[in-house]
Order: sequence, then structure tokens, then C-alpha cells
Amino acid sequence: MGHRLDDASAPARLAGPDEGIGPDELALATRNHGLPLEALRHDLTPPGLHYVLTHYDIPYVPDETAWRLTVGGLVRRPLRLDLAELRAFPQVTTRVTLECAGNGRALLTPRPVSQPWLVEAVGTAEWTGVPLRLLLERAGVESGAVDVVFTGADHGVERGVEQDYQRALPLATATGGAPEVLVAYAMNGAPLPPQHGHPLRLVVPGWYGMAQVKWLREVTVTDTQFTGFQQAVAYRVRQHPEDPGEPVTRIVPRALLVPPGFPDFMSRARVVRPGPVALEGRAWSGAAPVARVEVSADGGHTWDRAELEPDGGHRWAWRRWRAMWTATPGEHVLSARATDEDGHTQPLEQPWNRGGFANNLVQRVPVLCLDEDAPD
Amino acid sequence: MGHRLDDASAPARLAGPDEGIGPDELALATRNHGLPLEALRHDLTPPGLHYVLTHYDIPYVPDETAWRLTVGGLVRRPLRLDLAELRAFPQVTTRVTLECAGNGRALLTPRPVSQPWLVEAVGTAEWTGVPLRLLLERAGVESGAVDVVFTGADHGVERGVEQDYQRALPLATATGGAPEVLVAYAMNGAPLPPQHGHPLRLVVPGWYGMAQVKWLREVTVTDTQFTGFQQAVAYRVRQHPEDPGEPVTRIVPRALLVPPGFPDFMSRARVVRPGPVALEGRAWSGAAPVARVEVSADGGHTWDRAELEPDGGHRWAWRRWRAMWTATPGEHVLSARATDEDGHTQPLEQPWNRGGFANNLVQRVPVLCLDEDAPD
Repeated sequence: MGHRLDDASAPARLAGPDEGIGPDELALATRNHGLPLEALRHDLTPPGLHYVLTHYDIPYVPDETAWRLTVGGLVRRPLRLDLAELRAFPQVTTRVTLECAGNGRALLTPRPVSQPWLVEAVGTAEWTGVPLRLLLERAGVESGAVDVVFTGADHGVERGVEQDYQRALPLATATGGAPEVLVAYAMNGAPLPPQHGHPLRLVVPGWYGMAQVKWLREVTVTDTQFTGFQQAVAYRVRQHPEDPGEPVTRIVPRALLVPPGFPDFMSRARVVRPGPVALEGRAWSGAAPVARVEVSADGGHTWDRAELEPDGGHRWAWRRWRAMWTATPGEHVLSARATDEDGHTQPLEQPWNRGGFANNLVQRVPVLCLDEDAPD
Repeated sequence: MGHRLDDASAPARLAGPDEGIGPDELALATRNHGLPLEALRHDLTPPGLHYVLTHYDIPYVPDETAWRLTVGGLVRRPLRLDLAELRAFPQVTTRVTLECAGNGRALLTPRPVSQPWLVEAVGTAEWTGVPLRLLLERAGVESGAVDVVFTGADHGVERGVEQDYQRALPLATATGGAPEVLVAYAMNGAPLPPQHGHPLRLVVPGWYGMAQVKWLREVTVTDTQFTGFQQAVAYRVRQHPEDPGEPVTRIVPRALLVPPGFPDFMSRARVVRPGPVALEGRAWSGAAPVARVEVSADGGHTWDRAELEPDGGHRWAWRRWRAMWTATPGEHVLSARATDEDGHTQPLEQPWNRGGFANNLVQRVPVLCLDEDAPD
């Protein structure tokens, strides 16, 4: 008759064969949101269109001058820094495409029950902050350090475990140069919006969103590997519940189309008229860079090479691609797929796992091309 | 064997008795988004947390200097104005709470299949622009004018009807003072974000979102009542398909709680510890002003008066309310309800209609209060 956390917090599960999106998944979908795909046209995603996933509540921080970041654990000189002190460090701005590790989850069969993303959990911004390695240098990491643990101010319960959101990086990654990890205080030249971590967040270019700890308040160097919930329980690629799994780390290659023509309100189905249609979209990858993008107008049976713009020095950001397609009356399925320099290509069959992570299944965009004489 | 719009666009329908949220509703939920309820703490909703509903695609407007607003139809001096010319008119800033007419739809039984909002389709911003009546004065409305029609740049198909988004107001409303209708070019002191109508939108304080035409490019005075799709087909309160229905107009009273404590990630269920809990939230109404807010900790059986902050001169914005609650171990359901000065109170039974409009059913927030000795 006790009242404990397990009364509010259930284990992970898969949806049943005919189970529609339930009330819990809907509650997540109405508060988190993806990038409306037409916004792939913008090099930098305007505020409010960048995807957002918040595990718990967005902390309310009306006065950022009271915020402190501590750097502690296995260091010689523990730090406690306010925002003015952080801004006095050398400042770096990096253009980064962030993607949720669960992007594509709701397209899987069976569907892991969690935030039900289709393909839109992505966005690109310029993040400005202090390189993490400079903070760790200032603090002086002791020998024997293994991991660097990052703690956010967001607090909640997940599968029965009450927690502040925490993730870790191996020391070599935390202090490395490819990517250079940032403690960021600005997004597109402005203070961070509340939902993106105001006033401070971690930015780990090339890694999925779970590594980008928001509302960052503690950096702790440890002499053991971090085994917190978000590292050892969640964000593992598993085939069955007992599988220890592989950790989710860097973003696998993906290309997305700006859906052409205009939509039906309810189905979001696309409508075009016959003739040439300029296709465009973006492609990105967090391990090896994108090497090529191909498009298909027949659901993936045949592919044509798209024109891929150079990265313009923005290694960690998406790249625009373009292709022409001649629409003929009837129903079509458009797709794009990216391949990275290591030869990894997006699959046409779902890469299923229990958490629904890193599903870079090729996007399918059904398009109806009207008859020539269809009325306006 | 023709390929016509009806192939991509289905009639309105109600969900079946056990039908979960389907792929179409999910596609809308992942691109549109509500206000995360903890953001009710902010007087003005930060960009990206304000609710957004886009019927079709967000138009891409990289160069706002090319934008023109026309004022035509039954006027003596048709106008064609760029943004600089609009900014030269007297400028008004109004704090306005906007709410989607479909807020609450997904809580209805049976559920109308459309954008599946729970209770979070709301937000408050300061909108700056030109009073519409000044534009209509400059143009000189002819006698015999009935409606003023507003056309946006967003284009799509809805239940088989291809259209630019259009809505109308009666002339007296368009030129009236309570509310004063704005053609707005700034939100919270900055240019409009793309998803809020960049570069121009209509703001009709006190009315539901469908009246707030975004990406505004034409204002047309007519001598007949406007019968376009969004006026005469959609946004009507109907009990059955043949019912001509009543038009959706002003926002009915609603109060929402900031959910207390912390959430479970998946269920969003709230957890608190025993003892006093400060409750707060917001209340608003578009017809008569809010007169009082009450809170209930027993699912609506008993109610206590909350402290309601004065409106501070912001008649069209939400008002903060506060109340104290003493949590005891066990399961509770918290609610708040608003009553306006005309005596309209939020219902405890769903006010059902086929479109799922204006559902101001009292919010229910289940809260689990842990035992005193529950572990941290």
C-alpha cells in the first residue's frame, strides 16, 4: 500500500502489432517537436524550428547571473564559474547539425514505445562557447582519469530511477579535437533559449542528442567508467532486453528531402503538377563525412546521383543537395540516401533495435502528380 | 484512372472506439507543437515554446523586402505596401494570448481526427504592428462593405479543396477597438519567426488561432459574406455532418496548471513529496474577462479559490494565479478552472463537437505523492 516511484514509472516496452500511438507517446509528441521538413531550406534552423527533446521539465532560470558551473572530481584545482567567467575564456563558434538518437523510432516495426519521432528530429545551429578542453586544462586533470561526467539541472524519473540528467564522455573524447567539445552559452548569436539549455549546455559535434547535456551545472572527472542510467541502461543498441548492447555515439549518415509541391492538411501527402520539379534537401553524418547523395523516384529501385554542395568548412553541419525530377501524372515515392566516406549507406530495410536508436532507414515521400487538366 | 486531389485528401472523420493516434495525426503532432506546460511560468512565452499550428507548409521568405501587402476590393484607393511603408504607420504593441481552436481535441470521445492537441496549444507574446483600421481608413472602405478577407501565402489542399489559407472578419470587427486588430511585423520585439508568419500576420486579440492569418499578403473588402473553406466548412461547431453549425470565434475561458513536482519521462506523470506545494498557472478568456480561478485536489469534487493576479493592463493576455496545496502520500488529481465575468465556467463534462473546437474541459493533472520514507 506504499506510494513509490514505480507507481508512476513503467519499464520499457514495444507496441503491440496493431497498437496506435498511445496517450503517453502523444503527450511527448505534443511537447517535443521536430523540424518541419520545409525548414531544411534554411542553412541555419531558425529558433523554434530546431528539434527539441526534453527528458523531464525545462528548468526555469529567470536569473542567469546566479548560475554556476562546477568542474570537479579528479582535478587539482576545482572550478566554480559564473557566465561572465566562462565568457572570458577563448570563444569558439561551430556550426553543428544535431539529431535525436531516437529519430525514426516511430517508423519501426515493432515500435519501441517512447518519443515517437518519424524523421524530423534534427536541426542546425551555430553554437558559441568555451572549448571543454580549456576548462579541463584550467582545472588540471589528474592521472588515472577515465570519464568526464556531465550533470544537467533537469530532474525526473525514468523506468523507476529518479535522477538528474547525466551523461559521460571518455576523457580522450572530452579533450579531443575532432570534434572539439564546447560548453556553449549562445545559439545563433543569442543566449540559449530555455528549451536548448539556457544558460549553458554541452555541444559534442557529430554525436547524437543524448550527449549534448543541457542546463549544464557540473563537470566531474572520474577514475571509473560512468554507469549512470542514461549511459548504461538507456541509449544502448540492443536486440533483446538482456543484451548489454552497444552504446549510441555518433550520428549515422542520413539524407532528407524537402517534400516537393504542396501538402494535404491532414495526411501531409504531397501534390505536384506534371513537369520538372527541383528537389533539394540536406545530408549529414557524424562519423565519416558524407561522400555522396542519391535520389530515387521509384521507392528505391533505381538511384541517380544528386549534386552535393561542399561543406564550406562546416564539417559538423549538414550539406545541401539538389536534383531535378520530371513529374508525370500518377503516384510516386521519392527518396534520398546518403553514403559516408567509409562506405556506409542508408538502408532500405529497417535497422531495428529495442530502443529505436539510429534508425536511418531511407526516407519515403509519397507524391501525387495530378493530371495535366486537373483543376486548380 | 485520373489523378486528382481527392486521391490525396480525405473527408473529415471521427476515430473509432479503440483507435489510437494514427500515422496522419502523428505526422501533424511531430511538426506542430504545444507549449510545454512548465513554460506557463513565463509571462511572455520564449520563441520556440509558443504553440504553432501550420495548415500547410511554412512559406520560405528569404528576402522580406520583396514582400507586398495589398489592400483592395471595395475600397476607393487600393494599397500595395512594403514593410518599410507599413512600419511608417502608427505602431501598436499588444500582449496577446493565442490559443488554437482545436486545443483539447485529442481528449474528446469520440476523437475528431485532426491535429491531436491535448491542452497545450497556447502561448503569449507581444505583437507589434499597424492597427488594421488605419490601413482600411487609408484605403477608404466603400459603403456596402460586409466582410474583410485575409489571404496568406500558405497553399495546400484540405478535404479535396486546393486553397491559399483565407479567413474573414466582419467589417465592424476588422475596424473595431475591442479588440483592436493588428497587422503585425514583430513578436516580442523581433521580426516574426518563419512559423509565426514572417514577415506579416494578422493578430485578432481574444479570437482563436484560425483568425490570426499568417504570411499575410492580401486584405480584400467584400460586399458579400465570405464563404471560403476555412470560414464556412472548417471551424464550425457542429453536432452532425449536415449541421450548418456556429462559427468558431472568441476564446472560451480556460485555466491551466504548471504541473507540480517532477515528471516520469514516459508517462509525464507527476511526482511530489509530502508537504506544502505551491501551485501556479495561467487563466485567460477571449469574450468576457476572467473573473475567478478555483483549484481542486480531488478531481473536481471540491474547489478552493486561487489568488488571481490583476491583468496589469493586458486585457488580452493570460493572468497568473497561485494557490497552496498540502500533498499527502497517495494519488491525487489536480485541476484548475476559470470563470469569466459573464458567468461562463469550464465544464467537467466534455463539450463535444465534430471538429473538436473550443474544448475547455477542466484540465486533470494526476500527481503521485510519495511516502515520507520513499528513497531519493
